[in-house]
Amino acid sequence: MLEQLKEIVCRANAELPKYGLVTFTWGNVSGFDRKSGLMVIKPSGVPYEELKPEQMVVVDLDGNVVEGTMRPSSDTPTHLVLYRAFPGIGGIVHTHSPWATIWSQAGQGIPALGTTQADYFYGTIPCTRAMTNEEIQGAYEAETGNVIVETFRGVDPNRVPGVLVNSHAPFAWGKDAMDALHNAVVLEEVAKMAYHTRQLNAGVPSMNQTLLDKHYLRKHGANAYYGQPGDPMH
Amino acid sequence: MLEQLKEIVCRANAELPKYGLVTFTWGNVSGFDRKSGLMVIKPSGVPYEELKPEQMVVVDLDGNVVEGTMRPSSDTPTHLVLYRAFPGIGGIVHTHSPWATIWSQAGQGIPALGTTQADYFYGTIPCTRAMTNEEIQGAYEAETGNVIVETFRGVDPNRVPGVLVNSHAPFAWGKDAMDALHNAVVLEEVAKMAYHTRQLNAGVPSMNQTLLDKHYLRKHGANAYYGQPGDPMH
Amino acid sequence: MLEQLKEIVCRANAELPKYGLVTFTWGNVSGFDRKSGLMVIKPSGVPYEELKPEQMVVVDLDGNVVEGTMRPSSDTPTHLVLYRAFPGIGGIVHTHSPWATIWSQAGQGIPALGTTQADYFYGTIPCTRAMTNEEIQGAYEAETGNVIVETFRGVDPNRVPGVLVNSHAPFAWGKDAMDALHNAVVLEEVAKMAYHTRQLNAGVPSMNQTLLDKHYLRKHGANAYYGQPGDPMH
Amino acid sequence: MLEQLKEIVCRANAELPKYGLVTFTWGNVSGFDRKSGLMVIKPSGVPYEELKPEQMVVVDLDGNVVEGTMRPSSDTPTHLVLYRAFPGIGGIVHTHSPWATIWSQAGQGIPALGTTQADYFYGTIPCTRAMTNEEIQGAYEAETGNVIVETFRGVDPNRVPGVLVNSHAPFAWGKDAMDALHNAVVLEEVAKMAYHTRQLNAGVPSMNQTLLDKHYLRKHGANAYYGQPGDPMH
Repeated sequence: MLEQLKEIVCRANAELPKYGLVTFTWGNVSGFDRKSGLMVIKPSGVPYEELKPEQMVVVDLDGNVVEGTMRPSSDTPTHLVLYRAFPGIGGIVHTHSPWATIWSQAGQGIPALGTTQADYFYGTIPCTRAMTNEEIQGAYEAETGNVIVETFRGVDPNRVPGVLVNSHAPFAWGKDAMDALHNAVVLEEVAKMAYHTRQLNAGVPSMNQTLLDKHYLRKHGANAYYGQPGDPMH
Repeated sequence: MLEQLKEIVCRANAELPKYGLVTFTWGNVSGFDRKSGLMVIKPSGVPYEELKPEQMVVVDLDGNVVEGTMRPSSDTPTHLVLYRAFPGIGGIVHTHSPWATIWSQAGQGIPALGTTQADYFYGTIPCTRAMTNEEIQGAYEAETGNVIVETFRGVDPNRVPGVLVNSHAPFAWGKDAMDALHNAVVLEEVAKMAYHTRQLNAGVPSMNQTLLDKHYLRKHGANAYYGQPGDPMH
Repeated sequence: MLEQLKEIVCRANAELPKYGLVTFTWGNVSGFDRKSGLMVIKPSGVPYEELKPEQMVVVDLDGNVVEGTMRPSSDTPTHLVLYRAFPGIGGIVHTHSPWATIWSQAGQGIPALGTTQADYFYGTIPCTRAMTNEEIQGAYEAETGNVIVETFRGVDPNRVPGVLVNSHAPFAWGKDAMDALHNAVVLEEVAKMAYHTRQLNAGVPSMNQTLLDKHYLRKHGANAYYGQPGDPMH
Repeated sequence: MLEQLKEIVCRANAELPKYGLVTFTWGNVSGFDRKSGLMVIKPSGVPYEELKPEQMVVVDLDGNVVEGTMRPSSDTPTHLVLYRAFPGIGGIVHTHSPWATIWSQAGQGIPALGTTQADYFYGTIPCTRAMTNEEIQGAYEAETGNVIVETFRGVDPNRVPGVLVNSHAPFAWGKDAMDALHNAVVLEEVAKMAYHTRQLNAGVPSMNQTLLDKHYLRKHGANAYYGQPGDPMH
């Protein structure tokens, strides 16, 4: 069942350490098959170097395990909320990558300060509000998804493919699992650069909107001219 | 004698460089066998890549070398004080890992600022008071242990498995040597993230207690649901 | 056509990841043949590890592709402006290397604070002014080159072989592609050191001009005495 | 001539990249033979990975090349001044290692803030005064040595085996070339930690003198008890 998706999700999980995004098992990647309405996700607590495609867990949109002998990632309900709310996405990455986590812990969104961010994120990468005690003590992982969705009221998740969960860590997404991984790497890199830019020049404002438009749109959308014709977006 | 423990302690020492926790020989791991009351520890000043299980030194609770031809780590008395005072622990790691050492040198505990810390440490990672001249000029290494024990009056060392020694460096512990190593890696990572969080947002308070409870308890204790059933805690 | 130049440009591109200057495909190197007036440059969006010399794109000074089946880097017009304006240069490197990008995002030039910078850059590494909306919405990549050229009015690009583009990232150049790569590495290293120097001592002034002269001139020019006779400059 | 010393000096130079102390050829190691009064030093501008023992240059105390076909390091006169002034040393390392260079550029000595520094340096690692224009325009490299020697009036170079040259970079030394390399690595590590400690707690004073004494003396001198009997000091 969903053998190709399992292979891709397994590979995306296995690449997390290569990009320096994870310590131990602190991250998980999922992929979603819109046709069947099924999600493939990493099993909880298994080291990346040991992961095999057949260990990936298949879960339906209600969180029922449809295939697999292991427990899915404990963050499974968060992933499901996002797939339900954001119809354009097909992959999600959650990590505790340090620079993005630092902004999460500071409770601040990452302002767009330069073209690196503009190439992938159309503006600020937002930070959620703090969750209430009721949300934390309730269906915590699903509520984490809900507060992310609330944060994207008025923001297009296809153009801002990532978020910082307050006091926690980042989630990134994309059209598939590898694209989500790509955005998670970018998120970490721009988090590092924005941190130091603000230290160097505390008053630096967000970048010129015209420059943001230019860079985002030369890589994304109908008139994009970066890369080779027929290539994936990035 | 204690061959299996020697192998584990040797391997935990050998893994210190892999996690970036040590320069040269600046770190040591021990394991404790509660049945026999004997500790196995790294020999002093020997490079990690050359370590062999048979070089590990076996020491009793009074610090007498019971087996081994080399001197045990000069920090041996500190380890022994901790094993005597904290009955729940079976392994200890001491390093000068840079980010944790920075907090030690600043004389400040690491506040819990996010879920990464909450997953392993149930609150602030404390910093000891400065040692007195009498303590330093006396049985220095044992007194280092004593000031750590004093710091944990009213704090459960099983729930806060690490400490910063003022003007010195961190100690971490766990149920065995590999678990202590795991906690030492986490301590270093949260030290790095807390440092930068405070630089980005100097006034950020400690995290919501309810969120701290949630994360600590979903990984630890009777109702933990992270990882696979029967797996070790982490 | 220009087979040797293609090999050198290919190798310089392939070495970008080795020096930590790039994430994904965020960088490009070109080389210029002054005799034929032709530039060889990386194809857009192709990963470095897959690059082959025959994939390099040959472009004339007006931006027409003379040889090659792939699109040239989207930054091609910027490179061409610089080759036209700076007759002494034969190679250009553009990256989003993090420390140099941080200064670009802060909108600040990198002051000469020590001999490391003085060995390669004869003074401040300037940051361009912000581009106007007209420039961004017009021939953006060519205008990026124009604003760099404007920044070097009164500054010798042979003695200051690099620049920070405001809200964007660095360009470095040199007598050929490998020399440009060398200068891009130096630019990144001095950007990192200048950032931290300013954090440690906010009021530190630019270095003594006599010391700057001494270091720049002992490596460059007629009386240089660094390295071996007949060796390349660095 | 001095074949064994050439091998050691060659190896110490070759290890500079392994410890992250150098970019390109920005560093050199020498060793001194007190019996013959001859110094062995790296040739100028040669990459570390290509170095062979027979390429090392032998120089007498007046700077005359006694053996070798290549130019010695351009910093040769600095090394010679130090060997003449500090009779206890047998090896010198000069690099532009980033953290130590940051303190040099800030014009500040590195205060002893914790036991890591105390284990190797008996107090502050000093920074020289700025050199005068006359010194810079004169015998610059020898004058660099002279200003280092001036900085150690009243300080024992055997107990403080390193220095920061103002607006420039560090020198470290030791009883031989490998010991000097060891001290250069420590200098870089404590520079990194002291920088961040000061950022975290700007008012943190130098460490307790009694603790400094304890740590320095348990590794150095007649009553040292770190390491194995008969082992080298570190």
